[in-house]
Amino acid sequence: MAKPTIIKTTENPFQTIEVDVFDEYGERLTKQIACERPLTVMLNWKEIVTLMTLGSRPDALVLGYLKNQGFLSDPEAVESLIIDWETNSAAVVTNENTDHLDEALKKKTVTSGCGQGTMYGNVMKQLENYQVPQIELKQSQVYSSLEALTHFNDTYKKAGAVHGCAICRNNEVLSFVEDVGRHNAVDTLAGEMWLNGDSGADKIFYTTGRLTSEMVIKVAQMGIPVLLSRSGVTQMGLDLAKQFGITTVARAKGLRFQVFTGADKINFDVKG
Amino acid sequence: MAKPTIIKTTENPFQTIEVDVFDEYGERLTKQIACERPLTVMLNWKEIVTLMTLGSRPDALVLGYLKNQGFLSDPEAVESLIIDWETNSAAVVTNENTDHLDEALKKKTVTSGCGQGTMYGNVMKQLENYQVPQIELKQSQVYSSLEALTHFNDTYKKAGAVHGCAICRNNEVLSFVEDVGRHNAVDTLAGEMWLNGDSGADKIFYTTGRLTSEMVIKVAQMGIPVLLSRSGVTQMGLDLAKQFGITTVARAKGLRFQVFTGADKINFDVKG
Repeated sequence: MAKPTIIKTTENPFQTIEVDVFDEYGERLTKQIACERPLTVMLNWKEIVTLMTLGSRPDALVLGYLKNQGFLSDPEAVESLIIDWETNSAAVVTNENTDHLDEALKKKTVTSGCGQGTMYGNVMKQLENYQVPQIELKQSQVYSSLEALTHFNDTYKKAGAVHGCAICRNNEVLSFVEDVGRHNAVDTLAGEMWLNGDSGADKIFYTTGRLTSEMVIKVAQMGIPVLLSRSGVTQMGLDLAKQFGITTVARAKGLRFQVFTGADKINFDVKG
Repeated sequence: MAKPTIIKTTENPFQTIEVDVFDEYGERLTKQIACERPLTVMLNWKEIVTLMTLGSRPDALVLGYLKNQGFLSDPEAVESLIIDWETNSAAVVTNENTDHLDEALKKKTVTSGCGQGTMYGNVMKQLENYQVPQIELKQSQVYSSLEALTHFNDTYKKAGAVHGCAICRNNEVLSFVEDVGRHNAVDTLAGEMWLNGDSGADKIFYTTGRLTSEMVIKVAQMGIPVLLSRSGVTQMGLDLAKQFGITTVARAKGLRFQVFTGADKINFDVKG
């Protein structure tokens, strides 16, 4: 498919920086911390939002954000994307009509990944009656995915204070991204899949973060049938996972996990 | 001071619910999960935002959110607050002029507590050149606060998937709140302090969450000189803490902690 022209006026910025800290004995130590920087997103010269991000894959993040917010529907329509870390801005130009933006920007829902993410009014409407593909999940796949994932999360190991998200298939981690925000991480992966025209049907979505309503919504938007999390689930996350028919496996670490939805689609092939 | 009339048309909702899950052996277990519900906030009959929240202290949350976003400045001006869990809405009526709202609502910054919280354009401007009171912090105070805090976080112990925030003074936890979002938890405490006219000068702010830019901004807005976190720090969180003169103690658990800013104001009285 036609990819948009992506221009980066500067190299991607550092992911971590070294700082001096003092431990409980007053001893000076050097620690790495995660970088965090603003990226103001403009769509057809209209300012949409400023994302605070680690900035590892800004092009995918910006497109994924705009797509997940319902501001973009056709990847073919994206003509160019300019990322400029000198002005911390991203400019997206499309040949789609974006006159509806002003309406959409009016209705904000502050979501609870953090308590206060934003999701615009049109998103839930688009997902009415939507169901992800119904597939079987093998217990052994859960274990092999968790095993494969242990080789990633570099920034977290170095600096902490970031969330990781990944797209897995069978025993393979197809894509892994970390960001200071879980939403940014999932938007980045969504942007990649969207640009590549990948189907979510045979994928597993993994996150280190909690499964709150807006995380489940974003996974549904990607058409991924299985949601795997190291953390827990909230009530609305659970309700939405049921609504979309997503198999939800949380508290997943090592050989332990808990199936919150879709247990009937799980083949406990390792059991016993 | 004059407190606003606070009307709750229904009791506060459950904090956790029981759900059936299946463990890695396919065995059915009963687990608690954290509740999460929308609360649409209206200020003088203008819809501002929908918060996704656990809903434990909705009145303080709503007022703290509006105050932290710069939509309210004078607690005396708040006439009434209606919380209605049947329609999941909160209506705040003030005798302050809120015509500036439309302007403020236009400029959004998506912050990185979650990646995508919202903070409106006017907030950083109000904090230009602001410094919190400069006070000494004793190492023993850090330890006694951490010890006192271990007796809280009920929802987390039951269900996980929530963040806790607290206001501490000396060895005392003055107020503790949990929410599905860190921002909601800090806004709730900010709302309480604001309504009670409490000063932040002698307080310590504790959070289980990461210290990202917008968390530090909110603590500065409360005038609290010490920020204590069980988690890590991001670069912008650190830069802002320096800018506001906040003493930042992160990775604090048991007897371990790391001082990221303000080490010169810490009295290592337990050391050696």
